[in-house]
Amino acid sequence: MLNGEKKISRPLRWAMVGGGRLSQVGYKHRTGALRDNTAFQLVAGAFDIDYERGKEFGVNIGVDEERCYPDYKTMFLEEHKREDGIEAVTIATPNGTHYEICKAALEADLHVICEKPLFFTTEEVLEIKELAEQKGKILGVTYGYSGNQMMMQMRAMIEKGDIGDIRIVELQYTHGFSSTEEADKFSDAQKWRVDPKISGPSFVLGDLSTHTYYMSQLIMPDMKIKKLLCDRQSFISSRAPLEDNAFVMMHYENGAVGRFWTSAVNAGCMDGQRIRIVGSKASLEWWDSKPGELSYEIQGQPAQKLIRAMPYLDDSCNADERLAALHVEGLSEAWANIYLKFAIAIDAKNRGDHETLENLIYPDINAGLEGVRWIENCVRSADQGAIWVDFEDVPTAQEVN
Amino acid sequence: MLNGEKKISRPLRWAMVGGGRLSQVGYKHRTGALRDNTAFQLVAGAFDIDYERGKEFGVNIGVDEERCYPDYKTMFLEEHKREDGIEAVTIATPNGTHYEICKAALEADLHVICEKPLFFTTEEVLEIKELAEQKGKILGVTYGYSGNQMMMQMRAMIEKGDIGDIRIVELQYTHGFSSTEEADKFSDAQKWRVDPKISGPSFVLGDLSTHTYYMSQLIMPDMKIKKLLCDRQSFISSRAPLEDNAFVMMHYENGAVGRFWTSAVNAGCMDGQRIRIVGSKASLEWWDSKPGELSYEIQGQPAQKLIRAMPYLDDSCNADERLAALHVEGLSEAWANIYLKFAIAIDAKNRGDHETLENLIYPDINAGLEGVRWIENCVRSADQGAIWVDFEDVPTAQEVN
Amino acid sequence: MLNGEKKISRPLRWAMVGGGRLSQVGYKHRTGALRDNTAFQLVAGAFDIDYERGKEFGVNIGVDEERCYPDYKTMFLEEHKREDGIEAVTIATPNGTHYEICKAALEADLHVICEKPLFFTTEEVLEIKELAEQKGKILGVTYGYSGNQMMMQMRAMIEKGDIGDIRIVELQYTHGFSSTEEADKFSDAQKWRVDPKISGPSFVLGDLSTHTYYMSQLIMPDMKIKKLLCDRQSFISSRAPLEDNAFVMMHYENGAVGRFWTSAVNAGCMDGQRIRIVGSKASLEWWDSKPGELSYEIQGQPAQKLIRAMPYLDDSCNADERLAALHVEGLSEAWANIYLKFAIAIDAKNRGDHETLENLIYPDINAGLEGVRWIENCVRSADQGAIWVDFEDVPTAQEVN
Amino acid sequence: MLNGEKKISRPLRWAMVGGGRLSQVGYKHRTGALRDNTAFQLVAGAFDIDYERGKEFGVNIGVDEERCYPDYKTMFLEEHKREDGIEAVTIATPNGTHYEICKAALEADLHVICEKPLFFTTEEVLEIKELAEQKGKILGVTYGYSGNQMMMQMRAMIEKGDIGDIRIVELQYTHGFSSTEEADKFSDAQKWRVDPKISGPSFVLGDLSTHTYYMSQLIMPDMKIKKLLCDRQSFISSRAPLEDNAFVMMHYENGAVGRFWTSAVNAGCMDGQRIRIVGSKASLEWWDSKPGELSYEIQGQPAQKLIRAMPYLDDSCNADERLAALHVEGLSEAWANIYLKFAIAIDAKNRGDHETLENLIYPDINAGLEGVRWIENCVRSADQGAIWVDFEDVPTAQEVN
Repeated sequence: MLNGEKKISRPLRWAMVGGGRLSQVGYKHRTGALRDNTAFQLVAGAFDIDYERGKEFGVNIGVDEERCYPDYKTMFLEEHKREDGIEAVTIATPNGTHYEICKAALEADLHVICEKPLFFTTEEVLEIKELAEQKGKILGVTYGYSGNQMMMQMRAMIEKGDIGDIRIVELQYTHGFSSTEEADKFSDAQKWRVDPKISGPSFVLGDLSTHTYYMSQLIMPDMKIKKLLCDRQSFISSRAPLEDNAFVMMHYENGAVGRFWTSAVNAGCMDGQRIRIVGSKASLEWWDSKPGELSYEIQGQPAQKLIRAMPYLDDSCNADERLAALHVEGLSEAWANIYLKFAIAIDAKNRGDHETLENLIYPDINAGLEGVRWIENCVRSADQGAIWVDFEDVPTAQEVN
Repeated sequence: MLNGEKKISRPLRWAMVGGGRLSQVGYKHRTGALRDNTAFQLVAGAFDIDYERGKEFGVNIGVDEERCYPDYKTMFLEEHKREDGIEAVTIATPNGTHYEICKAALEADLHVICEKPLFFTTEEVLEIKELAEQKGKILGVTYGYSGNQMMMQMRAMIEKGDIGDIRIVELQYTHGFSSTEEADKFSDAQKWRVDPKISGPSFVLGDLSTHTYYMSQLIMPDMKIKKLLCDRQSFISSRAPLEDNAFVMMHYENGAVGRFWTSAVNAGCMDGQRIRIVGSKASLEWWDSKPGELSYEIQGQPAQKLIRAMPYLDDSCNADERLAALHVEGLSEAWANIYLKFAIAIDAKNRGDHETLENLIYPDINAGLEGVRWIENCVRSADQGAIWVDFEDVPTAQEVN
Repeated sequence: MLNGEKKISRPLRWAMVGGGRLSQVGYKHRTGALRDNTAFQLVAGAFDIDYERGKEFGVNIGVDEERCYPDYKTMFLEEHKREDGIEAVTIATPNGTHYEICKAALEADLHVICEKPLFFTTEEVLEIKELAEQKGKILGVTYGYSGNQMMMQMRAMIEKGDIGDIRIVELQYTHGFSSTEEADKFSDAQKWRVDPKISGPSFVLGDLSTHTYYMSQLIMPDMKIKKLLCDRQSFISSRAPLEDNAFVMMHYENGAVGRFWTSAVNAGCMDGQRIRIVGSKASLEWWDSKPGELSYEIQGQPAQKLIRAMPYLDDSCNADERLAALHVEGLSEAWANIYLKFAIAIDAKNRGDHETLENLIYPDINAGLEGVRWIENCVRSADQGAIWVDFEDVPTAQEVN
Repeated sequence: MLNGEKKISRPLRWAMVGGGRLSQVGYKHRTGALRDNTAFQLVAGAFDIDYERGKEFGVNIGVDEERCYPDYKTMFLEEHKREDGIEAVTIATPNGTHYEICKAALEADLHVICEKPLFFTTEEVLEIKELAEQKGKILGVTYGYSGNQMMMQMRAMIEKGDIGDIRIVELQYTHGFSSTEEADKFSDAQKWRVDPKISGPSFVLGDLSTHTYYMSQLIMPDMKIKKLLCDRQSFISSRAPLEDNAFVMMHYENGAVGRFWTSAVNAGCMDGQRIRIVGSKASLEWWDSKPGELSYEIQGQPAQKLIRAMPYLDDSCNADERLAALHVEGLSEAWANIYLKFAIAIDAKNRGDHETLENLIYPDINAGLEGVRWIENCVRSADQGAIWVDFEDVPTAQEVN
């Protein structure tokens, strides 16, 4: 159980690129990173493309004015000169800028935390991965909800065989906020998401499904997709070629099958993510609208409702518990959990503590790679007419070189 | 609102083939047909392949011993001789016998009510359809849950444009009772369902999905499937080639897309059928575990829970209401509703009342045809490797001849 | 599991007083009584105070015109003369008429089934109870939902100690359909319910709470109320002195405490009845809006959702099962269950089969007596200013005489 | 919508008394106070009765070792000497110490935030209230969940007349974690709660019900209790005279009635708090297990599910929004909201900004007073045998003097 006591010797000096006043996601990053002031300390930022607005914002959240920078290049340069310069940076900008900022950050000897989807192509990820390895730096990806501790519970139960052999994987991440064309004009955040130059090869596949896809890998680390088929649509035609709805079907190597539904036009849906794993003897189901619950349904027995913070849960689940039973945790705790793990990873990397790094389960650069690979395979299938494609193993960095 | 008062001049003399003591479904037929004793009257039966058991059973449910027959052929022959002979018969036997019994019943000048899936092939259905037309008889198909009046509510709301243009159709009929191989040995009912000679070309596609597929047609009469892709599995390998799980993806002619999940291995699932129709401005959702509720979710507004029997529902919905608000109706009322419509249809047919027949919404032989066509298209896709196939329009009876 | 096969040698000849076209509850009685045509057969009726309307109605539901009578007195007289005269009668008229019709029915040597609340006073019940004993007749009371088989499951689990010692009893039967004064003008059924001359000393206490109170006795036969306090209100002032809302607090003899909320002004409430029994180690909870489910909550363990028709339920519960898993049962099955038990009781009484009578759990005249006693105690407390009153044991018939 | 930008000119220098490593609630205070580092800054503490443990803990959460004090008296003394000394202190110690520490804190010229229930008697509260006024200091009470913004939504809807006139108030705060005697031995936190010397005159009435009682006042500021009746029990007899279960009935001055159930022996209950307000035309319902939802049930219309962060909510509700739709907020956001309001109140008090103070809705000393008064009235009723007592207006400070 976490109570804010430090897990690393001192908080890391941390900055943000993006995430300013108009950002939807910036606050989630700060909420996660600064939860207990023992993992990260926000000391600098290039929060906004509008320098004045960004500076005012930075000062308002407690950053020294002189460390509120006009752009990330200046920040990396200036901070590098300081003895108390930043050690880690979060990139919370539109997708199309992730690659160049990550690269610059690593080249400035910074640990990096980046929004999803990481980059546009797996080639880019592999290149950056190699760079991170050369630099000895961590690159984490903010699949925020994956920090929900019920994921660890599902992982533990599946590992222990509580549901038997996995047969069916049913995944969903949908909402309806982009049901109309007006939605695209309403917010800047939505506008760039449907612009391929900024968003990359996908809209909802990247924006939504990469989260749940990573969570499925987290809870079922042994399950590998063999082939998939993706059918994507642009119900608002101006979004084409980017999809606002997609269905994916998967065949796993063990014979299991799966489905994914991701959508921004599922009108009225407020339940967001759903994960159901069907095994030969039981199923597990989780919804993000009630993130502290898990339905455990053994065929032929009464369904059980597992609830966060209870002693019957696995230790790996309760290790990330904060508020105790009856006290609802939400998205902010999930973000706090992954940011705490980022801090632990960075600290371990700095210290050369390989054991900690190997045992730590968190969305690292490989998780980012998997997300991009997922999008690539989905788009490759969809663009050929929603046909089955072998799930391509991205060549390893070694093979690339 | 229905209160048992007669809708036709007198109850029809009715018999059953099958549906005896060991039958799972026989009681549902009787529950539906005999709800108010003003639609049907059970006067004869060939209830069981074991004559003695069937006779004892028939007597126990109030049938004269002399009208408990050893087999359907004898029954049709003997009843034909009587002045008070049966006018309609229900066929509640395993799938593989439907065709021959239906044919014999029609040839014996009987109206017919038959279990789903109707037959093995659309050719058979077309042949029988022609025979029924020649004989001037009704052939109804017992998609039992389709009698739930919330289907009429969904139909009315969709017709009125309450959800806008239909974009996504999400259908599900799953359970987990066949999760293990033992399930196949447990009951006779399950045993024949996985034997292609008796069950036909499918297990769950026919046994489960035809229900929900018909319900989707009932609520969205204008939606036509253009092409589909079906991926089916036999997780219990002894069931192959029959599937215990299948995923279907659909493209509709209006540009909408859809999915269907049908399964008998969805371990622990007790929710059965789910229908979600996503439109350009709202969604409608219904689950058969709470059959008197409908979720109406207008994007951007609070979700509304519509409840059976309330004055705000459409007249076509409340027309089938029986128990009034706060008093849960279940499957038996749904069956009673379709059986009442069968009786009204038979009566209208007998009287040559075309107007009534044209306006009556119930699962007729065309609904049976659609179910068989659905299975054929799914199997055709699945057996070619889960590829997209054009949804074949079955040739009309005229074209066949 | 019930499938309609006869439980008694032949169906009983049965009539109704009241329950005609305008009755809300008449159809529920027929639905229950005639479920399988093997318990009761409707052969006569005095369905309506409007003779012509009642006759037309009777004919429409299959009763011979000559056996549709202008009033109960004529019916009892005429039917008594027939060899095939009625053997049992249901009284579904407003409360104020129950006593005299019950008395007349028993004097006409009929078994009686009567709506709740049985009469206005316990004295009346005791008098009629003595008469019924003299006549050797059954008097059943239609606490309809008490036929739901999950009541038997709760009874069995409590008996087995599955929840430990009972500490808290939380009961509720509320709706909001009488929230406005207009409701009283809307229907005749509502109008008489708020007229003390017809409804008796209470509105919702009698109309609603007697159901759930009986169900609490059914599931916890050993729990006796020691004292109670009732606070009742007439939010629509024209209803005074009859209450449209009441709160009751109970102390049981074993030290447990309880509460009851009954209301017709709980605006928007569509959940009706709720029963929660808290024990020293677990709780059981049931809601009538999902009548086939039971929540079993062992402190410190995941809550379990027990579902109707599953093999893990008690035999006494599954004995009343009809439709099998996945197929929702509702109020009509609950009514069918109690009417079947009425038939079994009547048949046993006729045959002098004491063993069957002793083992049969159904709402008999003692259950009717308990309901009236409950109302009397509640009203006695309320009318003294909502004070604690000892729960008065009604004197036995012997003591009365 | 809140994004962490400062609401006051600089964060307040803040300390805690209690709330160390073994405290259940200490982390909730820090989570709330330090959410954005723009309201409070934790600079000192007397975290633990074990000085060494408290010091280690303080250092681990980032407090300078020299400002980790052995006890509150030392802290107040030493901090008072510093130019950068603390300005506000939170008291998160067992109930029995609140009074003396609050008094000392005020005398040391500190603003105070104190756990509930505030003190043992209203006299104590009035005395401290006068002291706070003399000193010009704020005293806030941490009814944590009252910071949930759906409370503001309920308040706004009730104010606008969306439910009509309030008739029935149904409140609940129960759990089952103290179902057994072992629970009292398990944790120190539970042990002192059942010791009258430390806990005061009540267990669950103070520990649980004061939260929900305050919330009821927050959402219905015009509703005044006229009289109440409280029935309390000690199901674990060693807890007597302190109750582990209590039922309260209320009469309000406007003619409305209410109930409260508070319990620590509601076995298996994980839903915690429930608030249902029934009006003459609609009801509002909120459960703390799904804190971002509100059920709005207009009689005769479909129930509406209002969800956090949606534009259709009242501005006063969305003003406290942080994470946006689809992203679950939980208890930590509720605490952050009240702590932010404490900071705003303190800042306004320091600046003499009466307008801000008058318009700010937060749990101030009057809310603390109301909680103690509630307990006093409940206990007074219960100890006389659960009789009706007039809800005593506590004399004002002026009258006391």
